[in-house]
Amino acid sequence: MTRQVAVCGPADCTRTDAANAHRVGELLAERGAVVICGGGTGVMAAVAAGARAKGGLVIGIRPGDSAAGACPDLSATIVTNMGEARNAVIVASADAVISIGGSWGTLSEVALAMRRGDIPVVALGGWHVVAADGTPVGGIHHAGTPEEAVDRALA
Amino acid sequence: MTRQVAVCGPADCTRTDAANAHRVGELLAERGAVVICGGGTGVMAAVAAGARAKGGLVIGIRPGDSAAGACPDLSATIVTNMGEARNAVIVASADAVISIGGSWGTLSEVALAMRRGDIPVVALGGWHVVAADGTPVGGIHHAGTPEEAVDRALA
Amino acid sequence: MTRQVAVCGPADCTRTDAANAHRVGELLAERGAVVICGGGTGVMAAVAAGARAKGGLVIGIRPGDSAAGACPDLSATIVTNMGEARNAVIVASADAVISIGGSWGTLSEVALAMRRGDIPVVALGGWHVVAADGTPVGGIHHAGTPEEAVDRALA
Amino acid sequence: MTRQVAVCGPADCTRTDAANAHRVGELLAERGAVVICGGGTGVMAAVAAGARAKGGLVIGIRPGDSAAGACPDLSATIVTNMGEARNAVIVASADAVISIGGSWGTLSEVALAMRRGDIPVVALGGWHVVAADGTPVGGIHHAGTPEEAVDRALA
Repeated sequence: MTRQVAVCGPADCTRTDAANAHRVGELLAERGAVVICGGGTGVMAAVAAGARAKGGLVIGIRPGDSAAGACPDLSATIVTNMGEARNAVIVASADAVISIGGSWGTLSEVALAMRRGDIPVVALGGWHVVAADGTPVGGIHHAGTPEEAVDRALA
Repeated sequence: MTRQVAVCGPADCTRTDAANAHRVGELLAERGAVVICGGGTGVMAAVAAGARAKGGLVIGIRPGDSAAGACPDLSATIVTNMGEARNAVIVASADAVISIGGSWGTLSEVALAMRRGDIPVVALGGWHVVAADGTPVGGIHHAGTPEEAVDRALA
Repeated sequence: MTRQVAVCGPADCTRTDAANAHRVGELLAERGAVVICGGGTGVMAAVAAGARAKGGLVIGIRPGDSAAGACPDLSATIVTNMGEARNAVIVASADAVISIGGSWGTLSEVALAMRRGDIPVVALGGWHVVAADGTPVGGIHHAGTPEEAVDRALA
Repeated sequence: MTRQVAVCGPADCTRTDAANAHRVGELLAERGAVVICGGGTGVMAAVAAGARAKGGLVIGIRPGDSAAGACPDLSATIVTNMGEARNAVIVASADAVISIGGSWGTLSEVALAMRRGDIPVVALGGWHVVAADGTPVGGIHHAGTPEEAVDRALA
């Protein structure tokens, strides 16, 4: 069965994040995975553009009540009209989650994915979660490159 | 922009409903529309099969917490894990709604679509909504054939 | 355990609907049931006012992203930010559903309640659902008075 | 208007977390705030027990399709049937969020609350969010006592 990989990241991202997201989109499309994303700007738009450049299928899951503001490279647009609760739908639809860059919305998706407990969660850049004494909370794989992130997601 | 048409109907449908759904799926795919459906059995499976037979894109929006039970002809599967609230997501994602056959779940989708008030709602078979004195409540277009239903939805 | 009864109806309702809703709220509060409603105007505001007049607990489940526009007699306001998908939450939270008056939003709640299949669904006024030949689709109890509606809901 | 404070924390929490949650519940009830929680075990049950001990109103927002498994001290139980997407409803309903202890579900609620950007977010114990170089990501107020947490939430 086709694998579906959610790629999450800030709407207002760095140039490095956008380049990483574009490359992740290319790699996922080349390997036949469907890309699920939030369908907005920043990392969402970049991963969609990368995947479409390689002929991939990209589904954008939008928070508002219309497709307005959706990025241009989506194969289909799911309009949830459920605000940030749509982050839970993105995560529930994924066989793996890759986060690129840090933001509170992105962190909510990473946390919801770890809460599921049954799928790979890979971070490329972005924030870290630590205990009060500074020791990392385990479970997220922090990848160094788009290639490593996609390899782990599809392992 | 690509139009997205939701096709709703019973998981346990009649043979006529299934045939109508298959034909609606074919027609929508031929006209380049993305089909949104609930991704289950009955009308959902039939419209997906029809659309895929013509090379169309079909997105299934599932109520449970996994893709288990999804019909085989989906291009992508959105796992909402929100039960019948997913009916609202199907409707919110649509530029038009076609219902085929009658069931309470189907009626909830028709009602949510009419509640939106800004998209065509077309019924092919199924139930009717009337006032206490038996006069029809207006707004839904009752079509006689798959061709008429699709014409109205894409008008 | 305390019973929770959802009372649904149009935001823009008739005077009869409002009077019925107020009386239903009084009766439910007198019998110790928690009232769940949409927390808006019309039937929602009337049932809340009736219940609060008798010291009852009323929870309003709102569609938007804030409590703005909520009716004044709520004990607590749940802000779903999920639009009409909140109708599914109202229904899922109920041990019985009473609809008062007719509207598409109200019908979506009745249909979702019938879809559940495991709770009483009582209608006081409002629309009817019929097959193509005009025969009623069974399952909804059409009550003639607020007292009968509450009796059936709590039976 | 009555303030509503969401209290979030692990279903499987430490004794310190439970004691803190009980005290936070007492303090919120004494100050007239409605407590919103997930309605389960651990921190959720403890904050509900504390609030009810002081006569407060506590609403539990459950992830499943029934009230089964809800903690005993709820004034009302909202059954969302939307899994962890209910975390977004908890956060959307709050005028302030207090997290007690660390878990991925809890972190998703903290992240969604920070994503809102318009309410106080207070942590009592639990995890920290840092950038790649270990510097804290700002915005969450880390409180040392239940009293400080409630003061900040209601400030």
